[in-house]
Amino acid sequence: MTERMAAVLQHVETTKETALERLCELLRIPSISTQKQHRDDCRKAARWLAEELQGLGFTTSLRNVSWAEPGHPMVVGHDDANAEKVRNGQTHVLFYGHYDVQPTDPEALWLTDPFEPCLKKTGDGRKVLVARGASDDKGQVMTFIEACRAWKAVHGDLPVAVSFLLEGEEESGGENLLPFLRENQEELKADIALICDTAMPDRETPAITTSLRGTVAEEIELVAASQDLHSGMYGNAAANPAFLLCQIISGLRDEQGRVTLPGFYDGVTVPDEHTRQQWQTLYPDDAALLEDVGLSHAAGERGFSAIEQTWCRPSFEVNGLAGGYQADGFKTVIPARASAKVSFRLVPGQDPLRIRDSFRAYVRAALPEDVEVVFTGHGASSGFAVNQDSPFLLATLDALGKEWGKPAVMTGCGGSIPVAEEIREALGMDALMVGFAQADDRIHSPNEQYGLDSFFHGIRSWVRILAALAR
Amino acid sequence: MTERMAAVLQHVETTKETALERLCELLRIPSISTQKQHRDDCRKAARWLAEELQGLGFTTSLRNVSWAEPGHPMVVGHDDANAEKVRNGQTHVLFYGHYDVQPTDPEALWLTDPFEPCLKKTGDGRKVLVARGASDDKGQVMTFIEACRAWKAVHGDLPVAVSFLLEGEEESGGENLLPFLRENQEELKADIALICDTAMPDRETPAITTSLRGTVAEEIELVAASQDLHSGMYGNAAANPAFLLCQIISGLRDEQGRVTLPGFYDGVTVPDEHTRQQWQTLYPDDAALLEDVGLSHAAGERGFSAIEQTWCRPSFEVNGLAGGYQADGFKTVIPARASAKVSFRLVPGQDPLRIRDSFRAYVRAALPEDVEVVFTGHGASSGFAVNQDSPFLLATLDALGKEWGKPAVMTGCGGSIPVAEEIREALGMDALMVGFAQADDRIHSPNEQYGLDSFFHGIRSWVRILAALAR
Repeated sequence: MTERMAAVLQHVETTKETALERLCELLRIPSISTQKQHRDDCRKAARWLAEELQGLGFTTSLRNVSWAEPGHPMVVGHDDANAEKVRNGQTHVLFYGHYDVQPTDPEALWLTDPFEPCLKKTGDGRKVLVARGASDDKGQVMTFIEACRAWKAVHGDLPVAVSFLLEGEEESGGENLLPFLRENQEELKADIALICDTAMPDRETPAITTSLRGTVAEEIELVAASQDLHSGMYGNAAANPAFLLCQIISGLRDEQGRVTLPGFYDGVTVPDEHTRQQWQTLYPDDAALLEDVGLSHAAGERGFSAIEQTWCRPSFEVNGLAGGYQADGFKTVIPARASAKVSFRLVPGQDPLRIRDSFRAYVRAALPEDVEVVFTGHGASSGFAVNQDSPFLLATLDALGKEWGKPAVMTGCGGSIPVAEEIREALGMDALMVGFAQADDRIHSPNEQYGLDSFFHGIRSWVRILAALAR
Repeated sequence: MTERMAAVLQHVETTKETALERLCELLRIPSISTQKQHRDDCRKAARWLAEELQGLGFTTSLRNVSWAEPGHPMVVGHDDANAEKVRNGQTHVLFYGHYDVQPTDPEALWLTDPFEPCLKKTGDGRKVLVARGASDDKGQVMTFIEACRAWKAVHGDLPVAVSFLLEGEEESGGENLLPFLRENQEELKADIALICDTAMPDRETPAITTSLRGTVAEEIELVAASQDLHSGMYGNAAANPAFLLCQIISGLRDEQGRVTLPGFYDGVTVPDEHTRQQWQTLYPDDAALLEDVGLSHAAGERGFSAIEQTWCRPSFEVNGLAGGYQADGFKTVIPARASAKVSFRLVPGQDPLRIRDSFRAYVRAALPEDVEVVFTGHGASSGFAVNQDSPFLLATLDALGKEWGKPAVMTGCGGSIPVAEEIREALGMDALMVGFAQADDRIHSPNEQYGLDSFFHGIRSWVRILAALAR
């Protein structure tokens, strides 16, 4: 196997340029799933990926989903050799990634067109590709596809059975995923899922993310008067939904930075001392961790370091505020309505639906007469922790260590990749989250980037992992 | 005098149509003072008014103001007969109004073009003119101009000496007015100022507004991280300026609805029992007062009726909120910045500059590390109470009573007309606020309107008041 793999790694080295060109092609498609005007672009990205896989010998289909908006298609692919491999007892992996991307606002802060990938050299001499989705998640998805391509190109075959599930709604709630997994349980079930949507703790250390936070995302709109009011004529007497919104939001965290909803911390456990120690070694300094984004202090729950606050502690955040007059100058108005997009980040053990109910009950209880609320749910998912007894975990850690020349570590992640939990729930198998993004990739922000190191070492890592998982 | 006045009133009746046409001409000019793109429109409105006055025999000039932005011109006019009248001991009045208007957002809620006046019949059979500025303040300004026109048309002369001061920055802070009054003290000083920018307590009862609230309007922007952040990666650890903004705003009122700034109520007095009784008679029912705008309860400071909350109690209001992702769908982002437009309404006795300082100190003290604030002032003015010994007050109340067939009352007003206080301060004379707007005119809101009753009875009222003020 070692020799066969060496040939594949060699092939990756000689085909870097074309691999990069293919990634750029995918990045040019503005597949923003949360914005209706990009509906066709999402389908275009799905079709592009399906054709790539088909070209590699995968039987591929676009599956329409219709349980909930927005309904962007799932791309499902199975290597034509899967059936025989599985019959022979070979490992079967399901690769998951997503082809949709975040919106690009604030547009003005992009230095280049978000959908015209631009190769740049950073201050420290690294080469990076700048585009929306470069890191989250198109660049990462392509590391796996290119690894498969290289195996096929050199040996006409993959070391294990491989299936693909590429989603188009990861950035817009992803509410269709779980029903889709359930509906297609037989087809999608494998031995282990591989997910590439996470980051490395630093530029040199490979990692498997073994815990994730879930999300409850909610939009609330408060409605009071039948029209905007003159704040002189009505100020004091008229209910002000913008002020009330501030009160409601403000009441959701106490002075210790803890979320105040009743029962919010039910089921939350603190990591063992060994894990906290390991994290402390990786990230000894809150300020160093935050300085890249212009911050210096862990602002959240007291008693936890910055990395603990994001990896293992749940949180409440305001993601958007809107109400009243926002343009130039001043308007002395009491807005008739005000709204906020807010979210909770959850850790394993918390129940997202109970927390959503608890949040809505809290808001309703805070409403005075004359004020009504409209809730819009934008997704609810549990936190996730990998089963540490998984037979595939060690093999993958080992393969990563060999590629990067440094032992791979197990880390947490503050973000939500609901698919990990949902795959376990619907397909009854574990998921390994292996990602090559960097903390300064600016995902979800202007000038998102993906290092060429991440991309090419990522491809090589998967070449090795595919070999390591073979029986 | 009675006969001379009767002829003028008769003339008003026969020239209604042309008066209305002139008002429509003025309303078609989109003179939004707070928006830079309407700078030329403001000048156009000023020029239109200057030409009107010139046509009536007033020596008129446009005065550029340059102490502070935005710098829209003042229109100043003096009747050519003033000098002789003043020499003969005749009363000299200075009329004040403003030609600028509020922005039109939210545009989508206008049923007709805000700058194409539209004559409509309301549900209760009244005729109203719908346009931005119809009531606030172009319609009201034209009541006085048309009264002068009628006197001049019938008798070639006015009963008193009349000067005009028409401002273009009333809706955008009005910071140039006080310096302008001071600089032109000699020219603008008269016996009494007449201001037409207020409303009647109901459709039948004429009123002089004898108290006004002042304003301190502030914009605050909180800035934290150097970029918008992924709320999964950073949520909890990164300072969230949108949440902090909510905390800061929420802390400004206590559970009794009282403003919490230290010293905020210094100098505030409660009206005497007689006044509270009179107001109670005019507005016995909070719900009735608020039902037109879809509300039913006085939401502000406990222990005061709705009319007291707006007429004689100071207040804090949120006028605009903005931060993070506001478009369709959801974006899991921690905004780098968030901002609010807020204002305090002040009553006589409160010091606007001290309150502004106190507010800014409160905000600064609330900032944690990593968060900075930028303040933008949008005006600061004192509350105002008319001198009840003014020799002109009784004569004007009497003239109003005769026109409307019902005794005129003295009311308060929750809005700010800083000019009243500033005229007293800079010119050492009192100001009578006589207005014909109605509570449901929707000033500052979509579909602003001015009743034809208000307009024509307004003109007739001024015809009578000019006669009543003559010595």
